Amino acid sequence: MTSTHVIYGLLLSGFLQMFTVESKTHISVILVGATGDLAQKYLWQGLFQSYVEQVGGAHSFSFSFYGGTRLSPSDGAPAMYEILKGLSCLPNVPSARCELLKDQFLKLTQYHQLDTAEDYSALNRKIEELITQEGLEEDGRLFYLSVPAFAYADIATKVNATCRPRKGPWLRVVLEKPFGHDLNSAQRLAEELQKVLREEEMYRIDHYLGKQAIAHILPFRHDNRQSLDPIWNQHHIERVEIVMKETLDSKGRTSFYEQYGVICDVIQNHLTEILTFVAMETPVNISDSEEIHRNKMKVYASLERLHKTSAVIGQYQAYNAEVRHELQKPADYSSAVPTFAGVAMFLESPQWDNVPFILTAGKALDERVGYTRIVFKNKAFCLQNESTRKAEYSQCKPRQIIFYVGHGDLNFPAILISKNLFKPVMDGLSWKQVAEFPDVHMFGLPLSDYYIYTPVMQKDAYAVLIPQILQGKRDSFVNTEDLLASWKVWTPLLKDLSKERPRLYPGGAQNGDVLDFTVAGRAVLFSAAEPVTIIAAGIGPQSASGYKVAESSFRGNSLVSANTEELIERLASHLHRAAQATVQEVGKFHLAVSGGLSLVGLFQRLAAYHYTFPWKHTHFWMVDERCVPLRDAKSNFRSVHDHLLRHFKIPYVNIHPMPVHMNQRLCVEDDRGADLYANEIKMLVNGTSFDFVLLGAGADGHTASLFPNSQALSCDGKLVLFSESPVKPHQRMTLSLSAINRSKHIAVLITGKSKHPIVSKMSKAGEKAQSWPITSVQPSDGKLVWFIDHDALLG
Amino acid sequence: MTSTHVIYGLLLSGFLQMFTVESKTHISVILVGATGDLAQKYLWQGLFQSYVEQVGGAHSFSFSFYGGTRLSPSDGAPAMYEILKGLSCLPNVPSARCELLKDQFLKLTQYHQLDTAEDYSALNRKIEELITQEGLEEDGRLFYLSVPAFAYADIATKVNATCRPRKGPWLRVVLEKPFGHDLNSAQRLAEELQKVLREEEMYRIDHYLGKQAIAHILPFRHDNRQSLDPIWNQHHIERVEIVMKETLDSKGRTSFYEQYGVICDVIQNHLTEILTFVAMETPVNISDSEEIHRNKMKVYASLERLHKTSAVIGQYQAYNAEVRHELQKPADYSSAVPTFAGVAMFLESPQWDNVPFILTAGKALDERVGYTRIVFKNKAFCLQNESTRKAEYSQCKPRQIIFYVGHGDLNFPAILISKNLFKPVMDGLSWKQVAEFPDVHMFGLPLSDYYIYTPVMQKDAYAVLIPQILQGKRDSFVNTEDLLASWKVWTPLLKDLSKERPRLYPGGAQNGDVLDFTVAGRAVLFSAAEPVTIIAAGIGPQSASGYKVAESSFRGNSLVSANTEELIERLASHLHRAAQATVQEVGKFHLAVSGGLSLVGLFQRLAAYHYTFPWKHTHFWMVDERCVPLRDAKSNFRSVHDHLLRHFKIPYVNIHPMPVHMNQRLCVEDDRGADLYANEIKMLVNGTSFDFVLLGAGADGHTASLFPNSQALSCDGKLVLFSESPVKPHQRMTLSLSAINRSKHIAVLITGKSKHPIVSKMSKAGEKAQSWPITSVQPSDGKLVWFIDHDALLG
Repeated sequence: MTSTHVIYGLLLSGFLQMFTVESKTHISVILVGATGDLAQKYLWQGLFQSYVEQVGGAHSFSFSFYGGTRLSPSDGAPAMYEILKGLSCLPNVPSARCELLKDQFLKLTQYHQLDTAEDYSALNRKIEELITQEGLEEDGRLFYLSVPAFAYADIATKVNATCRPRKGPWLRVVLEKPFGHDLNSAQRLAEELQKVLREEEMYRIDHYLGKQAIAHILPFRHDNRQSLDPIWNQHHIERVEIVMKETLDSKGRTSFYEQYGVICDVIQNHLTEILTFVAMETPVNISDSEEIHRNKMKVYASLERLHKTSAVIGQYQAYNAEVRHELQKPADYSSAVPTFAGVAMFLESPQWDNVPFILTAGKALDERVGYTRIVFKNKAFCLQNESTRKAEYSQCKPRQIIFYVGHGDLNFPAILISKNLFKPVMDGLSWKQVAEFPDVHMFGLPLSDYYIYTPVMQKDAYAVLIPQILQGKRDSFVNTEDLLASWKVWTPLLKDLSKERPRLYPGGAQNGDVLDFTVAGRAVLFSAAEPVTIIAAGIGPQSASGYKVAESSFRGNSLVSANTEELIERLASHLHRAAQATVQEVGKFHLAVSGGLSLVGLFQRLAAYHYTFPWKHTHFWMVDERCVPLRDAKSNFRSVHDHLLRHFKIPYVNIHPMPVHMNQRLCVEDDRGADLYANEIKMLVNGTSFDFVLLGAGADGHTASLFPNSQALSCDGKLVLFSESPVKPHQRMTLSLSAINRSKHIAVLITGKSKHPIVSKMSKAGEKAQSWPITSVQPSDGKLVWFIDHDALLG
Repeated sequence: MTSTHVIYGLLLSGFLQMFTVESKTHISVILVGATGDLAQKYLWQGLFQSYVEQVGGAHSFSFSFYGGTRLSPSDGAPAMYEILKGLSCLPNVPSARCELLKDQFLKLTQYHQLDTAEDYSALNRKIEELITQEGLEEDGRLFYLSVPAFAYADIATKVNATCRPRKGPWLRVVLEKPFGHDLNSAQRLAEELQKVLREEEMYRIDHYLGKQAIAHILPFRHDNRQSLDPIWNQHHIERVEIVMKETLDSKGRTSFYEQYGVICDVIQNHLTEILTFVAMETPVNISDSEEIHRNKMKVYASLERLHKTSAVIGQYQAYNAEVRHELQKPADYSSAVPTFAGVAMFLESPQWDNVPFILTAGKALDERVGYTRIVFKNKAFCLQNESTRKAEYSQCKPRQIIFYVGHGDLNFPAILISKNLFKPVMDGLSWKQVAEFPDVHMFGLPLSDYYIYTPVMQKDAYAVLIPQILQGKRDSFVNTEDLLASWKVWTPLLKDLSKERPRLYPGGAQNGDVLDFTVAGRAVLFSAAEPVTIIAAGIGPQSASGYKVAESSFRGNSLVSANTEELIERLASHLHRAAQATVQEVGKFHLAVSGGLSLVGLFQRLAAYHYTFPWKHTHFWMVDERCVPLRDAKSNFRSVHDHLLRHFKIPYVNIHPMPVHMNQRLCVEDDRGADLYANEIKMLVNGTSFDFVLLGAGADGHTASLFPNSQALSCDGKLVLFSESPVKPHQRMTLSLSAINRSKHIAVLITGKSKHPIVSKMSKAGEKAQSWPITSVQPSDGKLVWFIDHDALLG
């Protein structure tokens, strides 16, 4: 089959504006994995529809299509042609014309075995011969890799070695997810591909972004910017829900699913990309892929770190048995892979501060539906009796915009805008207003309360995306930088969750409200208690949580021990209770905090989850400080500020950084900074007795900036001292042991394996071992609690 | 009529627990104004019902009732007996027994003329004779003054002079609102009464607090504190609506209404008292009036100041004609008295921070209804398809508690609690659950979604309150301290609103959504634009707002002039725009601010309404500072902090107070504080050129702390200087003229009549009049705008 059909476009179509090529310009499309599931269900159909659209386009050019697998033509070709028989046209194409177009497409398509490097060389010769014979000008070559991800690097290497067009024409290689299962694997894959392909040659396809309602999020925001710009922010938006519910389970796909789980399967990619479309600054030029990319990267940069408590996870009850059966696991095998997840993401930005982006997806749920819903805050008070209000325009009804992917109660893709918001500007060529609709309530409103738009022509996602690849329009595709940014966000959560047991759910309509969840502060919690009755044998609630906290004693004081995360939760609650009780009693709470890496975790936890802490009534003092300016990255104060203080409205005069930077010099005795701080303590802290002192401990036994055998240990008359550290920056300011020991509460947090030796030695040593200052911490009239994690305690 | 019926209680009743008196103990009740409207409609009935309840009580005692007016017995007595004929019993009393009770009551009641002091002396003799004759022990005397407020002081004086029981028995004087029409008048009235009555002898009645649903707010909170305590705060409550809608207009009462308006009539008293019931700390002991009073006063202390923009006001269209007719005003008379108001109040407290309390009331509205509604935040995400959710318990439905006074769609007093909140604890003796209810939606939910409770026995408010007076239970009454605290809150708003035109509304169902309003930040705005068509002739939209802003020039620079409030709004917007533009361009905004009283108004406005200001990206510098510690009340920084900074999360390192307090001493040259500040400016502010400098000006022509003929004016090499003020505290630190004049924007705000002379002189003087430093403010490469109010400009 060497003849090629050259098409001269006769009809106008806005869609083909980018094809500014000369007539007889030629594109070769090579589908690798031509007989696979995806190819059969979507890709051939997408290629055919793109071809049909070209036929109607304004510009002239020609195509040839090659399908290939690792099979010889005698095995592969019949399978491929079998698939091609099933091609169909959009409903607006008359059937006679459709037959003609199918016939043309078949004539342009041939099978080519693609296994060895030699196969690829042969393909290259075939393409070049055709071009030469027909006197065509080559526009480019599109390789669509519909093969498992592990084969990408190998095929890309062969394409690069043998099938690269000589200078001029483009090469584009399309890749299907998964693109790794965490940051490391994604990075490795990206590096391998970057060896043989340039960034602009790679098209990582996320077909969900081709769903018409999703693909229209940015154009919608752009076209309606006059109405949206004033309200597209934290002051007007209450929350954003990005939802993908499936009724299907994972049966037959458990070997894939056990590796990936719901987060890698659809949340890290589909839903996170949608989040960037909603949250990014509206692009000034909607066709500028570069601008869109920049805006997207700003969103990634502003995403707050996810913690274990940022998500709830579930697993449908039958999943484990399916895994055992399909993967031939032993009878006691128990999978912890989530098939459902609900995650709350937050952006640290003036636009989105405190607005939850709720991403949720799952299998074996009660309905198949996908949507992105922007819910606006209700600030209206409606005086009129509610029964006589003009319902659809009432400001007291929910105000929302929904990008509806399809299925569910509506059963067609749509964009819904509450009538009480505004009447949107819509491109009438692509979108039409829906006048008749089912009599159902959606998102709390009857459909008559919405302006509803649906695509003039419903298209499959691939039929939307493939033409964009041909046009070189990159913004619906995931480039390497995007991809890694997204993995950077998700990898820590995946790691945290790997230790969690998912809640079991029965599947389908029986799920009831068992998966409903609540966003409280930064934390996500299931709304209902775990329904014990549906839990399968062997995964009882006892083992459902990894929470193991031991309470005993250490060096004669209380000891709390747990894994690091639980330990920090416990310490945060302990501190919170102390603060609450103290504020209730005396109206304020004097807290002295150390720097140190393990305390950063505590600060983050306090900032994210302890929003009822009496922040405004707390005075913050430093236990010790490095002699650097306050803005310096090494400043203890800066760490406390960035991880904790800046999240709350704390009166300026309640914040007491140590005056290490005076008269433009650092920690000079003559500036009397230590005395100044001591005087401030005397002036404000009743009896110079802090309510709570938070300490860490070093592997060398130091605490605060009191190092082993230091002079500072004996200066017990003073509250604040200068001291020397064996490590840089050497100069320090620190509370004295006597200032620390006058406190009402002291907590010492020690975490990590590197602290095990000192913890072990301390547990055996007597009181006040001179060489380890931490052992001299012993409140004269207060309570000391050691918080030591399993790694530090047990090694 | 001298015989007295002594009643021996035979039945048990919880209600009478406080009557721990001996048998034959006697109470005299004197109703002054016995034939007035209120007496006819409610008071005699309330007295009778209280009497009936006593008959069934556990304790024995006796009553006599005296009704009096200024009329002679021959004129007054028949009118009074006519009213007494109409008395009725509660439905649970059989009619034969009711007749008997009425008969008893009539025998206990006599008419007594009450006009002159002699009349009161005669009454006193009558009471004492009775007591002596019958050998009774006197418990106390209750004077119920149902007369115009202007007569209170006179009557109370006579009562004090002639009718005070001799030591032992109590005296209680009941007063009906209004208790003044602003702080001054309320204070005067209170002082007059305090001359003749002790605080515990005065019972200011607010009958609305006797409505059963309102009277039960505190008991409900107390009984359900286990469920409510964790959620009764800003973290869980979205808003509180306190609503009193009337269909009645003011016809026939305009002489009263013209003096009071809707705020004094019902909002300052009824609705504000309800606010305190909702917002106060739950009393530990619900019977401890003293504790309730203390908690109430804490609420008043935490109420944020109300501004003109805290409220919207309206007037029903026919009102003005009614006023003209009834008060015989000329045809061009136009009343600005509001018959409708919607107000958003905020509390500055950790519990209620940012929760709007929406108080709204009006006449000639579409329905008669009163309720207090607590709306909880929705933090739940419901995964289930909404059509299959178990509706009444779904966490995704509104969660609310409503104290429903009556009328409206429900038409009976009730307490409604969303089923998705909790099942409340209710006192079964007084409240019963409603099982059958109309098929209506209320507050967005079908009634089946609520637990609904209604009183076992519906009682009129007076029948609830009069027994409390007899028992000496004071917490449903308004004491002097309460009253003045409430007027203190409302008086400034009344003053601000007196200059505003209310929006006209047609009245009744025709109002549509014309009175709906929105709470944005701290501001309240009508949701719909003013409907021009319904506006009466003569009150066109041109004159509907007092907004008059003149823009011209002053000393060669731009001038904005308006009344003080509008001027401050303009300056706030001007500053906001500059900040936004600068942050957009360079990512941060360096703002230097002065102290000074007129700027406080600006800070308050910015804090309350400019919540989209880029606060986190703004650096705050001081233009000048007094040499006092930062916490001192005279510190400029403290003023900026308390009025502005503490309302936002501003990074600590963006706040730059002047270092006037170093080494425990103030503004000592050797500490080089001025140089330190100059260096900080050099380090952080690009080209030492502030983006915006906010200045004031003194009547002596000073600006910043640069005073006339000061040395500091010539120190132009320096950015920051020490200076001397002619007024205390003398020592200052200040930016130099050159630092000020290097700014990109300068705004000078001058307000008040006291500034008129200097403004007038400046407008005539040439450049840089040496003796007025403010005239030397002239940015070398920036923009200067004068903001001068009408008082300062025009005198």
